[in-house]
Amino acid sequence: MTILDTRLAAAPAASLAGRYAALRNRTERLAAPLSPEDQTIQSMPDASPTKWHRAHMTWFFETFLLLPYQPGYRRFREEFGFLFNSYYEAAGPRHARPKRGMLTRPSAAEVGAYRAHVDAAMDRLLRDPPAEALPLIELGLQHEQQHQELLLTDILHALSQNPLLPAYDADWRDPAASPGLARLIPGPEGVQQIGSGGESFAFDNETPRHKVWLDPYRIADRLVTNGEWLEFIADGGYRSPMLWMSEGWAACQAEDWQSPLHWHRREGAWFQYGLAGLQPLDPDAPVRHISWYEAEAFARWAERRLPTEAEWEAASGLPGFRDAEGIGWQWTGSAYRPYPGFRPWEGAVGEYNGKFMINQMILRGGSMATPPGHSRATYRNFFPPTARWQFTGLRLAADAA
Amino acid sequence: MTILDTRLAAAPAASLAGRYAALRNRTERLAAPLSPEDQTIQSMPDASPTKWHRAHMTWFFETFLLLPYQPGYRRFREEFGFLFNSYYEAAGPRHARPKRGMLTRPSAAEVGAYRAHVDAAMDRLLRDPPAEALPLIELGLQHEQQHQELLLTDILHALSQNPLLPAYDADWRDPAASPGLARLIPGPEGVQQIGSGGESFAFDNETPRHKVWLDPYRIADRLVTNGEWLEFIADGGYRSPMLWMSEGWAACQAEDWQSPLHWHRREGAWFQYGLAGLQPLDPDAPVRHISWYEAEAFARWAERRLPTEAEWEAASGLPGFRDAEGIGWQWTGSAYRPYPGFRPWEGAVGEYNGKFMINQMILRGGSMATPPGHSRATYRNFFPPTARWQFTGLRLAADAA
Amino acid sequence: MTILDTRLAAAPAASLAGRYAALRNRTERLAAPLSPEDQTIQSMPDASPTKWHRAHMTWFFETFLLLPYQPGYRRFREEFGFLFNSYYEAAGPRHARPKRGMLTRPSAAEVGAYRAHVDAAMDRLLRDPPAEALPLIELGLQHEQQHQELLLTDILHALSQNPLLPAYDADWRDPAASPGLARLIPGPEGVQQIGSGGESFAFDNETPRHKVWLDPYRIADRLVTNGEWLEFIADGGYRSPMLWMSEGWAACQAEDWQSPLHWHRREGAWFQYGLAGLQPLDPDAPVRHISWYEAEAFARWAERRLPTEAEWEAASGLPGFRDAEGIGWQWTGSAYRPYPGFRPWEGAVGEYNGKFMINQMILRGGSMATPPGHSRATYRNFFPPTARWQFTGLRLAADAA
Amino acid sequence: MTILDTRLAAAPAASLAGRYAALRNRTERLAAPLSPEDQTIQSMPDASPTKWHRAHMTWFFETFLLLPYQPGYRRFREEFGFLFNSYYEAAGPRHARPKRGMLTRPSAAEVGAYRAHVDAAMDRLLRDPPAEALPLIELGLQHEQQHQELLLTDILHALSQNPLLPAYDADWRDPAASPGLARLIPGPEGVQQIGSGGESFAFDNETPRHKVWLDPYRIADRLVTNGEWLEFIADGGYRSPMLWMSEGWAACQAEDWQSPLHWHRREGAWFQYGLAGLQPLDPDAPVRHISWYEAEAFARWAERRLPTEAEWEAASGLPGFRDAEGIGWQWTGSAYRPYPGFRPWEGAVGEYNGKFMINQMILRGGSMATPPGHSRATYRNFFPPTARWQFTGLRLAADAA
Repeated sequence: MTILDTRLAAAPAASLAGRYAALRNRTERLAAPLSPEDQTIQSMPDASPTKWHRAHMTWFFETFLLLPYQPGYRRFREEFGFLFNSYYEAAGPRHARPKRGMLTRPSAAEVGAYRAHVDAAMDRLLRDPPAEALPLIELGLQHEQQHQELLLTDILHALSQNPLLPAYDADWRDPAASPGLARLIPGPEGVQQIGSGGESFAFDNETPRHKVWLDPYRIADRLVTNGEWLEFIADGGYRSPMLWMSEGWAACQAEDWQSPLHWHRREGAWFQYGLAGLQPLDPDAPVRHISWYEAEAFARWAERRLPTEAEWEAASGLPGFRDAEGIGWQWTGSAYRPYPGFRPWEGAVGEYNGKFMINQMILRGGSMATPPGHSRATYRNFFPPTARWQFTGLRLAADAA
Repeated sequence: MTILDTRLAAAPAASLAGRYAALRNRTERLAAPLSPEDQTIQSMPDASPTKWHRAHMTWFFETFLLLPYQPGYRRFREEFGFLFNSYYEAAGPRHARPKRGMLTRPSAAEVGAYRAHVDAAMDRLLRDPPAEALPLIELGLQHEQQHQELLLTDILHALSQNPLLPAYDADWRDPAASPGLARLIPGPEGVQQIGSGGESFAFDNETPRHKVWLDPYRIADRLVTNGEWLEFIADGGYRSPMLWMSEGWAACQAEDWQSPLHWHRREGAWFQYGLAGLQPLDPDAPVRHISWYEAEAFARWAERRLPTEAEWEAASGLPGFRDAEGIGWQWTGSAYRPYPGFRPWEGAVGEYNGKFMINQMILRGGSMATPPGHSRATYRNFFPPTARWQFTGLRLAADAA
Repeated sequence: MTILDTRLAAAPAASLAGRYAALRNRTERLAAPLSPEDQTIQSMPDASPTKWHRAHMTWFFETFLLLPYQPGYRRFREEFGFLFNSYYEAAGPRHARPKRGMLTRPSAAEVGAYRAHVDAAMDRLLRDPPAEALPLIELGLQHEQQHQELLLTDILHALSQNPLLPAYDADWRDPAASPGLARLIPGPEGVQQIGSGGESFAFDNETPRHKVWLDPYRIADRLVTNGEWLEFIADGGYRSPMLWMSEGWAACQAEDWQSPLHWHRREGAWFQYGLAGLQPLDPDAPVRHISWYEAEAFARWAERRLPTEAEWEAASGLPGFRDAEGIGWQWTGSAYRPYPGFRPWEGAVGEYNGKFMINQMILRGGSMATPPGHSRATYRNFFPPTARWQFTGLRLAADAA
Repeated sequence: MTILDTRLAAAPAASLAGRYAALRNRTERLAAPLSPEDQTIQSMPDASPTKWHRAHMTWFFETFLLLPYQPGYRRFREEFGFLFNSYYEAAGPRHARPKRGMLTRPSAAEVGAYRAHVDAAMDRLLRDPPAEALPLIELGLQHEQQHQELLLTDILHALSQNPLLPAYDADWRDPAASPGLARLIPGPEGVQQIGSGGESFAFDNETPRHKVWLDPYRIADRLVTNGEWLEFIADGGYRSPMLWMSEGWAACQAEDWQSPLHWHRREGAWFQYGLAGLQPLDPDAPVRHISWYEAEAFARWAERRLPTEAEWEAASGLPGFRDAEGIGWQWTGSAYRPYPGFRPWEGAVGEYNGKFMINQMILRGGSMATPPGHSRATYRNFFPPTARWQFTGLRLAADAA
């Protein structure tokens, strides 16, 4: 399908330019606490340097908007077409992903100049954008938001490699989650519809809206907390193979998992490393930085299970369903596969989602690192079951019986 | 759930002993063409030696039937409890899987003695088996059949490592597949039921029978052939990243895939290595020894898709649906996850299936290596998307529109 | 140089055939306790299967003697030229070394037939051997002896991978070493000559005989014992990085060395796994199965050092210098590099030694696995400093001051 | 031994402070062309970031001079004792070497402040240094020089990972080497003396001065050139296994060596990447960035050999022996092992050299990156035989006959 098929209600041109400027500016604010050194390193192949994110978001506008639609536009630097392509085979060869941290040049300052150059050209384009470019403009903005989240998750991982455990921003405050005990609430059952019907922007992987059958189930009204996770630890959760998927147990042993990522034990007390640096662990806050394997083992220990993505989506609008967004992504029991009738977008952006639909698990909701307004009930986030560096937590579910 | 919940219609004791003897004898016949050397080696961690299979099947009866239900029974050799446990955490520690090929002792002959010893004890038990043992007896027989298939797939891989390309059995003849062009036939749609209802034996992962919603679709009446695969190769299928999942393309390049496993090009002609040794490739025979990644890329190239496992099962009883079993397992588009309401069996055999429900794709049908009568429409086979050493092929599907 | 340059005193033809037959027969006797399964597996890339050794020794005679010098001789099987070439680039392509354990065929019995076939042809050749073949015949016999030792070291490693710890030969008895306390005896100093002068067979790497300068030194009259090694362990030898080479300490930690290879602790007592199976550790026997790194760390702990190979050779003929041969190879402080004026043999056998003269350390003497009469004072054995699976021990030395 | 044993002729205090300041200033000038990003990354475990070098040199003075000898001195930051310890077990735990590139903090600027802080304290200490500190002061200065060279070699490797191939300093000019054809000149033979006798500073690994026996030999009066290396390439040097050590050939194939490191072929012409960026290859300049394996293979191809380190040292003072220093380090045929009678320095600096004396080959001379006055005829540089990122070349030798 084309992105136009998502029936994007295009905003008036003036406000589009404004949205563009505000979003692009938000990226720069997120990078502002970081030194040129911070912005350069890559702590693992799955994560990218801040500087690379800033340049890649810009490459996206340059490649998919300015080159096709802005007459006479030329790349800021020809080599950037190679350096900052992420994974688009149709857009030509690219720098090897695990080597993104070797790019000391261009400097952080030059990346800033690249952004300004593209922003100026985009500003001209956005004054009178051609109709066929509108969906790609929207996609570019959504893409910028996705990388804003990754910028935060990746820099947290990078800074965590430093024994000094520096803070990204000492003034950062984690959002407050819903208080109180968790309750299981019954979800909608029978034939239900999930997925995006195109009434507003959605990624191709959220479409088409389609019917599913749901057996009766219940779903928790809030996320699992650090305090509950401490019980799991105390009860030997990380030492009990019977609780784990076979591959999960192998990962747990190979990587010596004994707690969520970024937990530190100092003189008998638990601390958590986060965007504000090392802080005492809050037992009432939702647990985060857990892999799918840990989430699934916890659910078994709790005699519950993970919800499917369809259950999550069907229930997410119910009264009492708290913290859907804003705290942590929520692992589901669903593998990332295409919806019935899925068609990737046409053209180069067809590679956006479809080619990753294997060996990954679906997360729903949204995290404290997700830009406001970016996520929605139909949003499908996905990571491999070993991934721990995102802001990932869980919400429990159970069969109705 | 307990295996009893599958409501196994237990056969009379006499015929049970007969079934046991026939099945156990079949295993020995499968191993008969193999020398002690052939039976010993392990060609990769995923595959096991013939000798190990023969001993492990025996360990299963010894551990789950004789020790609990045959008063006074003692292990043939105490150490075999350790050596031939596959992955049952509840049954104690075990020999490391990648080191199964280091077990030159016990010899193939001693494994034969082990089998005879257990068979004699089982024969006594089967004369008057306690009711609660009946489901485990059935499971042991099913388990023996599963390893009969693995014995063949694993020895084919092991012998293929030898530059001499020796035949497992020079007289082996591949079964004939359905001739003629493939047709797409419409499958049942709307609310359908899949899974086993317990009317006959089924593994826990096939249960419970449950409702699913199926959008309209069509499914091929036969499998994709070698001749069709040659077109895919000729059209650059192995050189076109746009056809592949991202991880699949990485695997294709890293392992230099240019054709299905066991294809050899000699002086301009294609040959296929199989149980009868190297043979000219038959363009009309179904393709086999392909990974899920290759199957999925082929489907995209053919402007089709893989069926989901629910589509496959719902359509498998239709008139005209050919070669469901007996030729090759058929990759589906479904990830291996539990059915709604799934409960693993109780006790140690609860580890049989559930803990592998991640990072694997479902195959349906049955292959030329599957023992007669072992598979069924609800059967869920599963392997990682990179696996190529099984007898794996594909059947295409398409949306109805 | 040519092997002729070693001025081999060729034995009369009759006795040569006798020597040939006796040596070849000895190999078969060494393999006799081993089942076909035992003879097939490869426990690590550095070690080879018994069956492969038996075939490779035979390939050597076939390739370097029968094909060039026996008119009309044809290979027993053409493919064996590929399968059993070890590392001779000049002899054409070869089966990958780490895959030697995949050769279930030819069977052990067929390798026996191969040996008999070549032996019959060699017997004819040896009745009236051409003069230019004599050095290669001698080399083939020496080569057979080297692989006799490797056959034992490699099967010990292979059987040690089996949790049953089977004995190669339950009646095997380790040779007795010299009793009593070690004494340091002064060695010859100043300008000395080492290396082979060609008065009898020597490998090319032992030549030419040449002068070296030796500063005053003392060398132990016997090998370090297990009892002395127990003191090293008790004193924290395996936990003290300051005693170790930097790379040795890394290996010690990565592989979790806490004792020599093949030592087992059972209920508070030490046992040693050897050719007779698991036996109580004899504190008076020389330590064996240690890497160079361990030997060097021990010497530092003992406030001694390893002798250089020149010191060892110069001192080895002194009165009181005990256990030069027959117990264990003795690590020296010398890296394996060519002697001044070294010239490899001409022709394909030029690859015999020269191309391995890097990243390996010299061992002198001979072990309980070395065939009688094979070693000599000028013999240069060599292994990487991590190697532990040979019968390797140490003899201490010190500066004279 | 103690460093004092090297009988350092301590300079008057005033000039010592001047030498210190000049050397420390030279380091900062070397780092000046590099951005904070450039100074942060680590391109492989063997190389270190510029910023880390700058801090580690400073840590050396702080740890071994200021803390013991400057009353009341406190570390600039306590954590730096951990972060910037390289490999001194006696100095306590340290940051893992392969993770040096994760240290975005401290910033390059803060490292500058660290340097200034330590320089101020050192300036005070150097006004009236205690006698027992003099050798360590000298060692600190020598150590600073060694890391000046590594700073250049490591940044060249780091920048070479960037597809933009940025110049370290566009104005850098490689020094001119001796012109003309190479001649073989006879070297001193018989009993010779090599090593440092302590008349001026030397590292412990250069001592003691000792006798060696040298058979007659000849040695080239200049280094092998790029033009000669092009002949080696054209003659199939990188495709001829018979020229190579067995491990060298494996490395050549595994890493796909086809020319020295940093050579690039563009439209039919050869270019070399260096400190000035990409430049046309000068056929008359000495070849550099070759591994020992390549050097040794070249020598065999040229029907020559590498000189031993004793030959090199004995001949280096001969008339006509050109380019001993200032162009490229020269691989020798000698493994890095201790000299007879070697005693490491006492105390923590005893780890300086001794523990690396395995699996490395000796280089002699000095390179264009070596600080002026740092090297000398007895200097022993060492790297593993695979190392290519240093400024490494070769000088040929031959037996006299």
